Amino acid sequence: MASPGSGFWSFGSEDGSGDSENPGTARAWCQVAQKFTGGIGNKLCALLYGDAEKPAESGGSQPPRAAARKAACACDQKPCSCSKVDVNYAFLHATDLLPACDGERPTLAFLQDVMNILLQYVVKSFDRSTKVIDFHYPNELLQEYNWELADQPQNLEEILMHCQTTLKYAIKTGHPRYFNQLSTGLDMVGLAADWLTSTANTNMFTYEIAPVFVLLEYVTLKKMREIIGWPGGSGDGIFSPGGAISNMYAMMIARFKMFPEVKEKGMAAVPRLIAFTSEHSHFSLKKGAAALGIGTDSVILIKCDERGKMIPSDLERRILEAKQKGFVPFLVSATAGTTVYGAFDPLLAVADICKKYKIWMHVDAAWGGGLLMSRKHKWKLSGVERANSVTWNPHKMMGVPLQCSALLVREEGLMQNCNQMHASYLFQQDKHYDLSYDTGDKALQCGRHVDVFKLWLMWRAKGTTGFEAHVDKCLELAEYLYNIIKNREGYEMVFDGKPQHTNVCFWYIPPSLRTLEDNEERMSRLSKVAPVIKARMMEYGTTMVSYQPLGDKVNFFRMVISNPAATHQDIDFLIEEIERLGQDL
Amino acid sequence: MASPGSGFWSFGSEDGSGDSENPGTARAWCQVAQKFTGGIGNKLCALLYGDAEKPAESGGSQPPRAAARKAACACDQKPCSCSKVDVNYAFLHATDLLPACDGERPTLAFLQDVMNILLQYVVKSFDRSTKVIDFHYPNELLQEYNWELADQPQNLEEILMHCQTTLKYAIKTGHPRYFNQLSTGLDMVGLAADWLTSTANTNMFTYEIAPVFVLLEYVTLKKMREIIGWPGGSGDGIFSPGGAISNMYAMMIARFKMFPEVKEKGMAAVPRLIAFTSEHSHFSLKKGAAALGIGTDSVILIKCDERGKMIPSDLERRILEAKQKGFVPFLVSATAGTTVYGAFDPLLAVADICKKYKIWMHVDAAWGGGLLMSRKHKWKLSGVERANSVTWNPHKMMGVPLQCSALLVREEGLMQNCNQMHASYLFQQDKHYDLSYDTGDKALQCGRHVDVFKLWLMWRAKGTTGFEAHVDKCLELAEYLYNIIKNREGYEMVFDGKPQHTNVCFWYIPPSLRTLEDNEERMSRLSKVAPVIKARMMEYGTTMVSYQPLGDKVNFFRMVISNPAATHQDIDFLIEEIERLGQDL
Repeated sequence: MASPGSGFWSFGSEDGSGDSENPGTARAWCQVAQKFTGGIGNKLCALLYGDAEKPAESGGSQPPRAAARKAACACDQKPCSCSKVDVNYAFLHATDLLPACDGERPTLAFLQDVMNILLQYVVKSFDRSTKVIDFHYPNELLQEYNWELADQPQNLEEILMHCQTTLKYAIKTGHPRYFNQLSTGLDMVGLAADWLTSTANTNMFTYEIAPVFVLLEYVTLKKMREIIGWPGGSGDGIFSPGGAISNMYAMMIARFKMFPEVKEKGMAAVPRLIAFTSEHSHFSLKKGAAALGIGTDSVILIKCDERGKMIPSDLERRILEAKQKGFVPFLVSATAGTTVYGAFDPLLAVADICKKYKIWMHVDAAWGGGLLMSRKHKWKLSGVERANSVTWNPHKMMGVPLQCSALLVREEGLMQNCNQMHASYLFQQDKHYDLSYDTGDKALQCGRHVDVFKLWLMWRAKGTTGFEAHVDKCLELAEYLYNIIKNREGYEMVFDGKPQHTNVCFWYIPPSLRTLEDNEERMSRLSKVAPVIKARMMEYGTTMVSYQPLGDKVNFFRMVISNPAATHQDIDFLIEEIERLGQDL
Repeated sequence: MASPGSGFWSFGSEDGSGDSENPGTARAWCQVAQKFTGGIGNKLCALLYGDAEKPAESGGSQPPRAAARKAACACDQKPCSCSKVDVNYAFLHATDLLPACDGERPTLAFLQDVMNILLQYVVKSFDRSTKVIDFHYPNELLQEYNWELADQPQNLEEILMHCQTTLKYAIKTGHPRYFNQLSTGLDMVGLAADWLTSTANTNMFTYEIAPVFVLLEYVTLKKMREIIGWPGGSGDGIFSPGGAISNMYAMMIARFKMFPEVKEKGMAAVPRLIAFTSEHSHFSLKKGAAALGIGTDSVILIKCDERGKMIPSDLERRILEAKQKGFVPFLVSATAGTTVYGAFDPLLAVADICKKYKIWMHVDAAWGGGLLMSRKHKWKLSGVERANSVTWNPHKMMGVPLQCSALLVREEGLMQNCNQMHASYLFQQDKHYDLSYDTGDKALQCGRHVDVFKLWLMWRAKGTTGFEAHVDKCLELAEYLYNIIKNREGYEMVFDGKPQHTNVCFWYIPPSLRTLEDNEERMSRLSKVAPVIKARMMEYGTTMVSYQPLGDKVNFFRMVISNPAATHQDIDFLIEEIERLGQDL
C-alpha cells in the first residue's frame, strides 16, 4: 500500500508514468483542460492535480488531502464563492452508498470521482509524453502493495486509491504508440457504450431481461451477414467470449451438421473426424479439437506458401489422404488474416475444394474480418460468402472495446438444434412474447455478457464509412512502415512484398551483426535481439510491439496497426526507438 | 427513431418508465439532488430535467434542446454568471473525439454527459416509484425505433439519445423489486470497478498486457480456495465467461486427469465415460457433455429427494450400474444451490462415494458458493473442501456485476496441461519476467475479459464480513417470505420446510381455484396462473419474479433474493402484487 502521505489526490506527482519525468505534463494537461470553459476541465484539473499545481495561489495552508476531499467547484470565478461539497471518503464505506438510505449524495460524489479518475486516464492515454506502461516485475508489484483480501472493509478513500493504483500500472492500450496486440486503441463511443452496458448489468439470456440488447444483437448480426455476402443477411450467429470460442462453436456446429447423433451419443458413435487448417492458423483450432473430444491429432495442418497462405493443392492432397484412411473430413478452417503474417488464405480455391468434398467451410476472420468494411481491401476476403461459418472479431481491426467476437453461421436453426437442451425451467414456453427472441438456448453459455452494444453504438456513430476510413488508414500506415524499412540499413523483412493486412514482420539487425555470415551463430545472436529490445521498450515504457519466432524463423518483430491514434510520426518513432534500444546489441 | 422534437434532454418526460405516471418523481429526484450542495446534483438535475423542471424561472423562451446543449454550471448561484460550455452535439461526430486534435474538450464533455445519463439511471434504479421495466413487445420496439446500421455516421446528439433510449427500455436490474434472476442488484463499487475495467480495455492473456489484473486474479482465486478449505489456498483456477463454461472446464479437466491421451487422440481413444449429476442440476452439465463429445446420454441424472437434494444411494447404484456395463464413471457433479429449489446436495456423502470409486468430484456452487462467506450458513456446503473442482459465481449471490464466474481446481498444473498448446508465437518463452504469470495458455479462450477487478474491489470495500452481512440478510428475507406465505390463504408451498437458500417456491391459488378438487383440470388451470401474473407484472412494470414448471409440478413461482436493495417491505409488496394481479384468474 502506498503510504497515506503519498496522497490519494496527488495523482500527477504520485504517478511516475511520465509526469515525474516530465513535470510539466500535469500542468500542461491543466492548461488544456482549463481552455474548456464549461467547468469540467477545471474541475478535473483541480480535483486531480489539486493544490500541488498552484501552491502559491492557494497559500498552501491546507494539507493536500483535506483540500482534496472537497470536490472543486466547476465555475470559472477564481476564487469563487460557490459552496463546496464536503464528502470525506475516509469516513465513508460501501455501505453508505446506494441502496443505503440517504445514499444518493455519497453515491453521486463517489461515482463522479471515479469518473474523474477515468477521464484523466483517458486523456493521458492519448498523450505521447506519458508512458505506455509503467512496468514493474510481478514480485515488485506484489511486494510494493498489499493486494490481499481481508475480513474488514476499507473506506472509500482507500477504494479510490486502489482505482488510481490499478490504472497507474495498467497498460495504456489507447496510447498512440501501443502496437502490441491485434486489439489496440480506445474508442470513446465504444467506451461510453461499455460503461452503459456495465450500468445496465444484465445478460443476453432472454428478451425478458435484455430486450434492447437482444434486438440490437439481431440487427447487428444480420448486418454483418449482409456484409459477408449471404443473401438478405440470412443465417444465424452469436456474440461469443472471444475468437477461440467462436472457432470452437464453428467446429461444434460443423460436426453436428454432419452427425447430429453426436449430441446424444458422443464421439464414440461417429467415425474419426478430421479438421484442416493452415500451419499459420490460430492455436484455438487445436484447443477446440482437444476440448470437443476430437483430439489435436485430428487437426491436420496444411502447408503455407512463403507469405503464410494455405496452399490449396496441399489441402486437397491431405483431404484425400484422410479419406483413404477411412477418416471423415468434416471441417476446413481457412484463415482471413493470420495472427503473425496477416495472411489471407485463398478462400475461393478453398471453397471449391470444400464444395467438391462436401466439407464445412469455416473462415477464421477474427483479425481480417474488419477489411470487409473497406471497399478498397475487401477483395482479400473474396470467397468468404461461400463459407458455412465465419468468425469475425470487431474488437480487433474495428477497434471495439474488448470483448466483441461474432460467430456467423449461414444456415439458420443449426446453432439452436446443436446446443439447445429444452430446459423449460429456464426457457419457459408459455411467456407472453415472441419466444424466438430468447436466444439463450443456442449458446454454450447460460448467462452471456452483453457484447453487442459497444459495436452497435460505434457503428451508429461512425457509420460503415467510418470503419472503412479506420481500416484504410491503418493499412496505409502499415504500407508506410513497410516502405521505410524494406530498404533501410539494419532491417530484413521476414517475407517479401507489401503487407496484405497491417502485419509487418521484420528483423532489426544491430550493427554488430550486419557483417556476420548467415550461419547458426548469427541466428542465435539474432534470436536474442528482439526480446532485449522489447524488454527495454517496456522498461522505458515508450512503445510496445510484439515479437515471436515462427517455424524456422528466429524471433522477429511483428508490427500490427489497429490503433486509431497512431500516425506516421508514431511509426517513425517506433523505428527510431528500435534503433536507439538495439544499436548496442 | 423518436422524433427529434421529443428532445434528447427531456429525459424526465420522455421516459415513461414511471415519471410520466408519477410526474412528481423527476422533481422529487431534483429536490434530493439539490440537497447535494457540491454541484453534482444540481448539475445533473439541470442537465437531465432541463428547463422542463422550472419553466417559469427560465422564462421558457429557449427551446429545450438549445438550452440543453449547454452543460449546466455546477455553482449554487441562481442565476449565476458562470460562463457556459457550448458544446453542440448536433454538429459533432465520433471523429471529433479523442484521438482527434483538439479532441479533449468534446471528449470530456461527451463522456461526462454519458456519465450524467448513467448516474440518473443509477439513482432511478433504486427509486421504488419507477418501473422495474417499461415493457414493449419485440415488434413494438422494432417498429417504434430504427435500430438499423447505416453507411453514414450519426452525430453525437443522436448517440446520446440512443443511450437514453436503450436505458429507457432496459430492465432496472438494481431495482429493489427485481427478483427475476439469480443475479440481481447493482453494486456501486462493483459498477465503478467495471467502468474502470472498460477504460483499461485489456484482457487477461498475459502479465505483459494486464499486470495488475493478472496479480489480482491470482490473489482472489487463492482467497476463494482458502475459503473452500483447500490447505493454504493451494490449487488452480480461472475466471471464465459464466457458470456453464466453468462447469464445462471441470468436465474437461476431470476427463484429462483420467485419460490425458484424450487431448491428442480424442474420445475415440478412451472408454465410454459417464458423468453423474442430479435431476435438479443445471442444464450446463448436459450442454458441456454434448460439446465435449461425451454425449448427453452419458450424463446420468440421479434422483433427488422432495427437497431437491441428490440421493446418495441412488448415485452409488447408478455408478455400479455403469461400471457393470463396462463404462467408466469419471465425474460426479454435485450441486450446492440448485437453480429452482436452492437445494444443497449432501456433499460429504457424495465425497465418500467419489473417494470409494475414484471419481472426480465437482461441486457446482455457482449459486450456493456465496454462502461460504457466511459463518451462519456455510455448513450447508460441508464437504466442498473434498471436491476436486468447484464452480462459484460471485455474480450471483455476492452481487458482483455480470459476469464473474470462477472455476477452482484443487490440483495445480492440471488446467495448464489440459489446455496448453505451447504456441510460442503467442506465449514467448524468452520474456524478461516470471512467465508463470502468463496464464493465457491454461484457458480455452485466447483473449479473456477482465472479470476479476469488480470482485476484488468489492471485496476490499465490503470485506468478507460485508459479503457475509449481505448473504445473511438475503437469507433472512427469504425466511421472512416463507413465514408469511406458508400458512397464508391462497398459497401452497412446492416443498415443505424452511428454504436452505433464498429460493422460495410456491403456487399462488386464485380464489376461483381454491375450492376445486385436486384433479387434472385444476392442475391445468393452475399452470396458467403464474404466466399470466408474470405477464401482468411486466406490463405494469412493478416487480419481476420467475416462474417455471419442474418435473410433474406445474408452473410455480420461484422467488430468489440476491438483491441488496430489497427490504421486508418489498417482500410484502411482492405478495400484495401477486394477489392484486392474480385474484381474478
